[in-house]
Amino acid sequence: MVKQKYLDKAEVLIEALPYIQRFNRKIIVVKYGGSAMVDEELKKSVIQDVVLLKLVGFKPIIVHGGGKEISRWVNKVGKEPKFVNGLRVTDAETMELAEMVLGKVNKELVSLVESLGVKAVGLSGKDGGLLKVEKKFSDGQDIGFVGNVTEVNPKILSDLLEKDFLPIVCPIGMDSEYAAYNINADDAACAIAKAMHAEKLAFLTDIEGVYKDPKDPESLISKLFVKEAKELISNGNVGGGMIPKLQNCIDAIEEGVSRVHILDGRIKHCLLLEIFTDKGIGTAILRKEAIQHYDVQ
Amino acid sequence: MVKQKYLDKAEVLIEALPYIQRFNRKIIVVKYGGSAMVDEELKKSVIQDVVLLKLVGFKPIIVHGGGKEISRWVNKVGKEPKFVNGLRVTDAETMELAEMVLGKVNKELVSLVESLGVKAVGLSGKDGGLLKVEKKFSDGQDIGFVGNVTEVNPKILSDLLEKDFLPIVCPIGMDSEYAAYNINADDAACAIAKAMHAEKLAFLTDIEGVYKDPKDPESLISKLFVKEAKELISNGNVGGGMIPKLQNCIDAIEEGVSRVHILDGRIKHCLLLEIFTDKGIGTAILRKEAIQHYDVQ
Amino acid sequence: MVKQKYLDKAEVLIEALPYIQRFNRKIIVVKYGGSAMVDEELKKSVIQDVVLLKLVGFKPIIVHGGGKEISRWVNKVGKEPKFVNGLRVTDAETMELAEMVLGKVNKELVSLVESLGVKAVGLSGKDGGLLKVEKKFSDGQDIGFVGNVTEVNPKILSDLLEKDFLPIVCPIGMDSEYAAYNINADDAACAIAKAMHAEKLAFLTDIEGVYKDPKDPESLISKLFVKEAKELISNGNVGGGMIPKLQNCIDAIEEGVSRVHILDGRIKHCLLLEIFTDKGIGTAILRKEAIQHYDVQ
Amino acid sequence: MVKQKYLDKAEVLIEALPYIQRFNRKIIVVKYGGSAMVDEELKKSVIQDVVLLKLVGFKPIIVHGGGKEISRWVNKVGKEPKFVNGLRVTDAETMELAEMVLGKVNKELVSLVESLGVKAVGLSGKDGGLLKVEKKFSDGQDIGFVGNVTEVNPKILSDLLEKDFLPIVCPIGMDSEYAAYNINADDAACAIAKAMHAEKLAFLTDIEGVYKDPKDPESLISKLFVKEAKELISNGNVGGGMIPKLQNCIDAIEEGVSRVHILDGRIKHCLLLEIFTDKGIGTAILRKEAIQHYDVQ
Amino acid sequence: MVKQKYLDKAEVLIEALPYIQRFNRKIIVVKYGGSAMVDEELKKSVIQDVVLLKLVGFKPIIVHGGGKEISRWVNKVGKEPKFVNGLRVTDAETMELAEMVLGKVNKELVSLVESLGVKAVGLSGKDGGLLKVEKKFSDGQDIGFVGNVTEVNPKILSDLLEKDFLPIVCPIGMDSEYAAYNINADDAACAIAKAMHAEKLAFLTDIEGVYKDPKDPESLISKLFVKEAKELISNGNVGGGMIPKLQNCIDAIEEGVSRVHILDGRIKHCLLLEIFTDKGIGTAILRKEAIQHYDVQ
Amino acid sequence: MVKQKYLDKAEVLIEALPYIQRFNRKIIVVKYGGSAMVDEELKKSVIQDVVLLKLVGFKPIIVHGGGKEISRWVNKVGKEPKFVNGLRVTDAETMELAEMVLGKVNKELVSLVESLGVKAVGLSGKDGGLLKVEKKFSDGQDIGFVGNVTEVNPKILSDLLEKDFLPIVCPIGMDSEYAAYNINADDAACAIAKAMHAEKLAFLTDIEGVYKDPKDPESLISKLFVKEAKELISNGNVGGGMIPKLQNCIDAIEEGVSRVHILDGRIKHCLLLEIFTDKGIGTAILRKEAIQHYDVQ
Repeated sequence: MVKQKYLDKAEVLIEALPYIQRFNRKIIVVKYGGSAMVDEELKKSVIQDVVLLKLVGFKPIIVHGGGKEISRWVNKVGKEPKFVNGLRVTDAETMELAEMVLGKVNKELVSLVESLGVKAVGLSGKDGGLLKVEKKFSDGQDIGFVGNVTEVNPKILSDLLEKDFLPIVCPIGMDSEYAAYNINADDAACAIAKAMHAEKLAFLTDIEGVYKDPKDPESLISKLFVKEAKELISNGNVGGGMIPKLQNCIDAIEEGVSRVHILDGRIKHCLLLEIFTDKGIGTAILRKEAIQHYDVQ
Repeated sequence: MVKQKYLDKAEVLIEALPYIQRFNRKIIVVKYGGSAMVDEELKKSVIQDVVLLKLVGFKPIIVHGGGKEISRWVNKVGKEPKFVNGLRVTDAETMELAEMVLGKVNKELVSLVESLGVKAVGLSGKDGGLLKVEKKFSDGQDIGFVGNVTEVNPKILSDLLEKDFLPIVCPIGMDSEYAAYNINADDAACAIAKAMHAEKLAFLTDIEGVYKDPKDPESLISKLFVKEAKELISNGNVGGGMIPKLQNCIDAIEEGVSRVHILDGRIKHCLLLEIFTDKGIGTAILRKEAIQHYDVQ
Repeated sequence: MVKQKYLDKAEVLIEALPYIQRFNRKIIVVKYGGSAMVDEELKKSVIQDVVLLKLVGFKPIIVHGGGKEISRWVNKVGKEPKFVNGLRVTDAETMELAEMVLGKVNKELVSLVESLGVKAVGLSGKDGGLLKVEKKFSDGQDIGFVGNVTEVNPKILSDLLEKDFLPIVCPIGMDSEYAAYNINADDAACAIAKAMHAEKLAFLTDIEGVYKDPKDPESLISKLFVKEAKELISNGNVGGGMIPKLQNCIDAIEEGVSRVHILDGRIKHCLLLEIFTDKGIGTAILRKEAIQHYDVQ
Repeated sequence: MVKQKYLDKAEVLIEALPYIQRFNRKIIVVKYGGSAMVDEELKKSVIQDVVLLKLVGFKPIIVHGGGKEISRWVNKVGKEPKFVNGLRVTDAETMELAEMVLGKVNKELVSLVESLGVKAVGLSGKDGGLLKVEKKFSDGQDIGFVGNVTEVNPKILSDLLEKDFLPIVCPIGMDSEYAAYNINADDAACAIAKAMHAEKLAFLTDIEGVYKDPKDPESLISKLFVKEAKELISNGNVGGGMIPKLQNCIDAIEEGVSRVHILDGRIKHCLLLEIFTDKGIGTAILRKEAIQHYDVQ
Repeated sequence: MVKQKYLDKAEVLIEALPYIQRFNRKIIVVKYGGSAMVDEELKKSVIQDVVLLKLVGFKPIIVHGGGKEISRWVNKVGKEPKFVNGLRVTDAETMELAEMVLGKVNKELVSLVESLGVKAVGLSGKDGGLLKVEKKFSDGQDIGFVGNVTEVNPKILSDLLEKDFLPIVCPIGMDSEYAAYNINADDAACAIAKAMHAEKLAFLTDIEGVYKDPKDPESLISKLFVKEAKELISNGNVGGGMIPKLQNCIDAIEEGVSRVHILDGRIKHCLLLEIFTDKGIGTAILRKEAIQHYDVQ
Repeated sequence: MVKQKYLDKAEVLIEALPYIQRFNRKIIVVKYGGSAMVDEELKKSVIQDVVLLKLVGFKPIIVHGGGKEISRWVNKVGKEPKFVNGLRVTDAETMELAEMVLGKVNKELVSLVESLGVKAVGLSGKDGGLLKVEKKFSDGQDIGFVGNVTEVNPKILSDLLEKDFLPIVCPIGMDSEYAAYNINADDAACAIAKAMHAEKLAFLTDIEGVYKDPKDPESLISKLFVKEAKELISNGNVGGGMIPKLQNCIDAIEEGVSRVHILDGRIKHCLLLEIFTDKGIGTAILRKEAIQHYDVQ
C-alpha cells in the first residue's frame, strides 16, 4: 500500500503545475539581503528556492548585498564604519575592503548553489562592464566611492543565462574612469531587472511587507498598485527606510517589470511560498491592468 | 503568520530538487495502458504527471494502447473479437477499426495534455515512417495484420522534442508495402525507448509489480537486475502474461535504456511517486552496475 | 540515336523551369476533397502531384475532408446522417465517429505520401493547438459539435515544414473547453492558408470552375478578380453551394494569400496542370494588381 | 476539356519523381566541354539542364574547359598554338592568355545561368586556394605552365553551395609559389568530384560513349564496371584519347564518387536524358555493387 | 638584454590598439587603382595592408580597375583605344577584351592575397548578380558597353565575408538582358560601399589628396566636410578629374558610409598609415557630426 | 612628405603579419604573477599585450596569483604568514583572506582590461565548477586549505570565449564538499591550459628563463625539448624553485599544449616580444617534432 504521505506529496507537486507554467523561461531577479544572509538555515532555504526555480525552467538572477559583513571587516582592520543619511561613507580603503568582502560573499553563494547541482557564476558590476555608475552625493555632501547606476550592459547576463548558468551579482560598479564604486544593492537589483526585462523582481527584506498604517500589524497590504504606492509615499504614510525601496518598486514596474515583491526573508522558503501558492505572501506591487493576467485561478 | 501547510508544501518541492536534477533533459518513455486508460480520475492523474515531468525539464514520450476500446467497437459494428495466444486476430475490417479507435484515443490524449497548457502532437507509427513492421505469426498461424517492429525511424520524435512538443504515439506500423499493422503497445514502447536512447521506460500496468512468488503478495520485488529477471523467466517463476513484458524490459536495458519500471497504474500519480520519492514503487529492472549511479542519497 | 520521345520529355521538364522558380520555397495549401478522394486513380494522381511539388522545392500542406466516408460509417453503426442547410448535425456520437473516420483517412494519406518517398505527418486541429473553434449555429439552430475557426496556432505547421515533413491536416478543432468539433474542410484550409501566409490556396472540387452563367458551360471564367467575385455573389449569379466557397476565396486573398484556385479534381494531375502550364485550368481568383506579377510569359 | 498534350506533360513530370528523389541534395559535378561549348543551342540546353537540376534540389558544380577559344586567341595575338602529346605547351604569354580566355568563358557561363534565375559564382582554382598543382612534364619534357592537381581545398565550394549559389569553375591552379598553371579540365573535374564526395560526375564529350570495339558503332557500352574498364585499358581496346578519360572515371569511382558518366554532349539535354529516363544514354562507369542501389525500377 | 629595437616594435603594436578596436568587424571598401597597381613594390604593400586589416578583425573588400592594362591589350590586338570625355568607347570587341583583362588582374590579386595566407575570392559584378547596370551615354552620345550601376545585390559579398573570405571585385556589370558592361571602378566601389553599409571607403589615387587651390601644393586639405566638398565643386575650385571622385565621396557619405578617404597610392602602406596613425594622410571626407566620434585621442 | 617614422611603424605592423596568422583563434593561457603584478607600469604593459592579442584574433586566458598581497593582508589583520616547503600554511581565517585578496586582484585586472575596450569576466575556480581540488599535504604534513587540482570543468571558459569575453581566473578551487581551497597559480594555469587544449602557455616570472648552469648568466637556454628538460631535473642542474615550474611545463606539453614559455615578466611587453619577433625571448619548452611547424621563417 502506498502511504498517504506520498500521495500528499504528489498532490503538492501537481498543484505547482500552473505556477511553473506561468513563469516558464521568465527572468526573476532576486535581491538577497538582510537576515536571510546571516542565518545559516535561512541562507540555505533561499538558495534551495532559487535552485528549484532554475531547475523547473525559470531564469533567476541573484543580486546580493553584504552590509553587515563589510562593517565587521572595517572594524577588523581597526576603522570605524561611518554613515551619512543611511549611506556608508566610503573612502578608498573602505572601498577596497567592501569589494573584498562582497567578492567573498559572492563566491560563497556560488559554491552553495553549485553544491546543489546548478552551475553558477559570480559577477561584480565590473565584469563585462555590467554596471556603470556616477558618483553619488548625499545632500550635496561627498561620501566617497558611492555610485548611482547610470548604465547597465546586460550582455554578460544574457550570455550566461543562454549557456544555462545562474548569475550571482554583487553591487560594485565602475565610473567612466574605471574606478570601483559601491552601489546600494536594491538599486542594483532594480537596474538589472529593468535592463533584463525581468518578469519579476523580489526583494528579500526583514519586514513582513508594506503596511497601510506602519503601527498597525493588521494593516499589511497584499497587493499594491503603482498609483496607490505613489500615494503612500506622498501621504507620508510609509517610514523612511521604506521610501527608496517603494520608489525602486515603482520604477521597475514603470519600466516594464511585471511584478515586484517585497517579501519577508525571515520566513523559510518565502520565495517558493510567494510563487507556488495562490495566496502569496508579503506585498506585491503591480500595474492596475496586470491583476487578471497574473492570477491562475 | 504563514500557515504550517504552506511551509510543508515548500518542503515537498525542495525534496523534489535532486530528482529533478537527475533526469533533467532526459527522455522518458511512458507506456500508458490498462486501468489507467479507463478510469477518468486515473487518466487525469497520469496526464498531470507527464505534463509536470515535461515542465520541470524531462522529455517524456507517451506510447498508448487501446485494447478494450477496440473490442467495444468491434462489437458495435456487429463482429466478435477473436484472439489467438492473447493476440487479436486482425482481419482487414478489424484493422481499419483498430486504426480508427487508436486514432481517436490518441487525439483525446492530445487534448487532455493541451488542456494542461503543454503542446502535444499525436502520431501513429505511420507518421514520418516512425514504425516499420513485418507480419507476425502466432505459432506459425496467420493472425492477420499484426506486426513486429523491424525498424524505428525516430527523426519525427527528436524533431518534435527539439521543438518542445510532447509526442503521443499509438502502436500502428507500416510494412514494406505501406499497409497498416497493429503492434503490441508494449513492444512499440520498448522499440521507441531503445531507438531514442531513453533514460527510463515506465510501463503502467494493472499489477503491483513483479513477485518472487506470484502467489505471495508479500514477495513484491523492488529492484530486479537483468540477470535475476532472466532467471525468473527460465525458472518458470513468472506467469504467462508477465513473460513478454519482462522480456521487453530485459531487451530495453540491454540496448541502452538505463532503467525500466513496472508500475501499478491503478495508483494515482504512480509516475511521480516513482520518480520523486526515494523509496519508489513497483519493480525497477536495471543493470547491476547502475545501482549506485541512480540513487540520489 | 536518341528517340524523339525522350527529347520531348526533356523539353517538358525544361518548360517547367520558370514555374518551379516562381514558387520555390513558397507555401501551397491544397484543400483535398470530392471525387478526387473517392476514385483510387485520382487519389493517387493528387498525391503524386503534391509529392512532386514538395520535391521540386514547394512547401505544400494538405487539408482534407471526409464527408462521404463519415456518412458511410454513421450508417454502419445504425444511425441516419442528418443535415441542416448543408451542415451535418453532429451529436456527440456522430462527432466521435467523425473524428475516427477523419483520423483514418488522414493516416491513409500519410502512408500514400510516404510510399512515394516523402515523409509526412498527419495532424488534426488538436495537435499543437492548431485550430481553435467556437460553436457554430445554423440560422440560430443548435446543430451540435460544428465549429467556426477562431484562432490558428501555426507553430506545429512551420516546425514540420522546417524539418522537411509534409503536413496533412484533418478539420477537427477544439473549443475553449478542449472539446472536439467538426470544421468545414474549406474553412479549415482557408484559415490555415491565411495563418501560414500561403502563396497559393487550391480547392479540388467536383466542378470545372466558376461560370458567368451557371447554365452555360461555355461561360467558364479563367481569371476572376476579387471585385468581380464579389459582384457575382451580390448579383445572385452563382449557385448556393458556390457562395461560401467564393467567400472563402475572397477572404483568403484579402488576408494576403496571393492566388486562390478552384480546380476540377476530376481531372488527373489537375494541380500540376494548373501550376506547370501557362494556360492553367479551372478558375483563378486574384487581386487586380497581381496579374502581371504572376504570369511568367 | 483538357487537351491530351497537357495530360502528357503532367505524366512526364510525374515520371521524373523517383529520379528527383534519388539525387535530392546530392552533388553532381558536370565537366562541360567540347561541341556543347561551341554550338549556341547546345550551350543553352546544357545550362538549362544544370539550372533545372539545381532547382529540383540537386547541387550541381560546373567545371569547364576552353581549349578551342584559347587557340583562337593565341592566333589572334600572332602566336602559333603548340602541343606535345596532346598537351598544350604553355609559355608565360600563353598562360596569361589562357587565364584571360578561361576567365571570360567562365563569366559568360555565369551570366547565362543568372539569366535563367539562378545565382552563380565563377571561380578559378585560385579562389579560396581551391586547386593546388605541381608542374607536369610530358615524358620528361618541360611543357611550361601545365599542372597536375595535388591538393583540393573545397571550402569555397561547400560554402557557396550552402549559401545556395551554383559554382562554375575554370581549370586554373596555383603551385606552391602561387604561380598560375593550366590544368586539364577533365582532371580538374575529377579532382573536385572526389574532394566534394560527389554522387555523380558527368563528362560532356564529343563521342557517344565507350565502345567495346571502337570500329563497331553497335558496340556502345551502357554500363561499365570498374573492373571491365581496367581490362579495356590493359587490353588496348580503347583509343588513345579515351585512356586518360577512362582513368579519371576509375579514379573517381575508387575514391568514392558513386557513378561517372561519359555523355554525348552533342545531344540536346543529354544531362536530363541521362538522369530522368530509365534507359539513360552514353556510358555509365560504376562499382559492381552499386547497380542495385542506383536503379529505380 | 632585450634590444631597444624590439621594445620599439612592441610600442608600435601597442599604439595600434585603439585603432584596431575602432574598426573591429567593420567593413572597409578599398578602391585600388592608379600607380599602386603598376609598381610591383607598391602593389605588394597595398595587398599586405589589406591582409593585415583582415587579420586584425576588419572586413575589407577590394574593388579594382585596370585601365592601363586594358589599353595595352587593345593595342596588342591591333586596335586603337578611343575615349570620349574620359570614358572609354567600348565596342563589343573592346568589351570582350576588357572583361578578359580585368578578370586576369582580378585573379592575380587573388593569388597575391592567398600567398600571404588569407583566403580570397575574385568576383566580377556578374557573380551572384552583384552589379546591375543600365547603358550610360556621354552627353547623349552612344559610347558602347559602358554602364551606370542601377542595383547592387550584395548577398554574395556578405556571404563571403561571413565565411571569412576576402572579396576582390572587378567593375563589370550586367544589364537587364544579361549583357556585360564596363563600369568606372570608382563608381563600382562607391555603389558597393553604400550597399554594404561600409564604415570606410578609401580611394587609392595618384594624387596627394584634395587641394584648396590645385596650384598650391601647400593647400592640401586634411579634413573636408560634405558641405565644403559641395562648395569646392560649385565654386569650380577643383579640376575636372576630381569632380566625379568628389561627387562619389559625397554620395557615399550621404548614404551612410561614415568616412571616405582620398589617399596617395604612391606612398607605401598608405592604408595602414591612414588607419593606424593619428595624423592620417591624404584627405578625409566626412559628415560634420562625425568628427568627435572618429577621433581616438 | 610622409615622415620616416610613420613608414617604420607601418613596417613593424607588416612584420607582425605571419605571427598573427600563426595563432589566429588559438588559445593562449598567460600565468600572470611576480614583479609584473606589482610594478604599475609593467602591469599596464602586460594587460596591453593581452588585450592586443585578443583584438588581433587570439583567445587569451589570464590566470593570476596574488601571493605578496595576501601576505600584506595577513599582516594587516594581525597574523603572521607561515610557510612549509614554500607552501603557505592556510588555516580557515587565512583562506578567507586569501579568497578576498585574490578576488580583489581579479576584479582590478578586469577593470584594467575593460578600460582598454575589451570585455573581461573575472572568475575563481568556483564559478561553473571550474577547478575541483583535493587536499594537498606537504611531506605528509597538514598545511590546511591548500589543494591539488583533480578536475577541470572548462565549459564556463569556452562559453565565455565563444561570447567574446576575456576570462581572468584566480586560483581558488572547491573540494568535493564545496569548501574553498588555495591553489598554486602555476598549477592552476597548467591545468587550465591542458583542459582547454591551449596552443601556448606562458609563465611570466621574475627570472630570465632556464639556465644550463644557474650560476652562468650566459647559459640561458632559448629552446628546451621535453627530453632535455627532464634531464635538467634528474641531473640536479636546476634550482629548487624551478623544478615544479619545469615539471608543469613538461606536463602541459605531454598533454597536448604545443609550446610553453618561461618569460621574464620584468621586461616590458615581454609577451608581444615573444610572439611577434622571430628571435623570441626567455625559454621555450617544446616537443622535439614541433620545431619545424612553429617557426615562421
